Amino acid sequence: MRHTISVLVENKFGVLARISTLFAARGFNIDSLAVGETDDPALSRMTIVVKGDDSVLEQVTKQLNKLVDVIKVNDFNDVKYVERGLALIKINVNKSNRAEIMQTVSIFRTRIIDVSQDSMTIEITGDEEKIEAFIEMVKPYGIKEVCRTGIVALARG
Amino acid sequence: MRHTISVLVENKFGVLARISTLFAARGFNIDSLAVGETDDPALSRMTIVVKGDDSVLEQVTKQLNKLVDVIKVNDFNDVKYVERGLALIKINVNKSNRAEIMQTVSIFRTRIIDVSQDSMTIEITGDEEKIEAFIEMVKPYGIKEVCRTGIVALARG
Repeated sequence: MRHTISVLVENKFGVLARISTLFAARGFNIDSLAVGETDDPALSRMTIVVKGDDSVLEQVTKQLNKLVDVIKVNDFNDVKYVERGLALIKINVNKSNRAEIMQTVSIFRTRIIDVSQDSMTIEITGDEEKIEAFIEMVKPYGIKEVCRTGIVALARG
Repeated sequence: MRHTISVLVENKFGVLARISTLFAARGFNIDSLAVGETDDPALSRMTIVVKGDDSVLEQVTKQLNKLVDVIKVNDFNDVKYVERGLALIKINVNKSNRAEIMQTVSIFRTRIIDVSQDSMTIEITGDEEKIEAFIEMVKPYGIKEVCRTGIVALARG
């Protein structure tokens, strides 16, 4: 099952290495990871998306809680939450299809953040599904590069 | 100096652990990290923001290049690039200040993605500076939670 886990940690070096080693030791591949500071510079929040066996993941969560630099672990599967990620996608454009592409991408409420003679870089935010649907849609134009952040999540309400 | 480094890697478990251990072993604290799949599911791209000694970082980059799962390493400090991150920010609201907050946050071209009786969750994208400026601006209302992705970057043009 897919799990979105939020881990509040102290913003110290080595914490990320310890946490990612813990997942790797159990054979979990992290599908998406986002790490950023919170409003308190001493704390960082990691949002981790993993797929795998529920009971093994429960063990991993327990071990996470035992690490001294970990302050809090939340599994969003128990609550209602919103999740968002961001992707930058650079696609091929030419004079003849530029207008068509701009029209198409506007449906997804994206933002065009860079344009050159033969390329266009688009910023899109949304949940994984939306971002993947968008990437599929622009694939026929030719994708030069894709760069995605991990997913971040917050409980609703 | 602040460096934004992009690492194209094979999407296998353990790769993140190896890379983050490499940075930790050299005493680098990763300020921001974004990991996501590319348009090829076999490959992931990590975007790492670190501050530190240029010559030591050069050594880290060389060591990264030697890892078997690493396909390509780019340091964006040598090229023109665009960078973006995403933050979800949940702030306190009440009936009397809701309209004011909505007006204020619209200046930053944010999106309101969740509202409850006493809170509002806002999605903002931008470079680090913009996101930090926004967080400072909403601080007086009372921040309940902040969740930030790492920065992602693509070369211009």
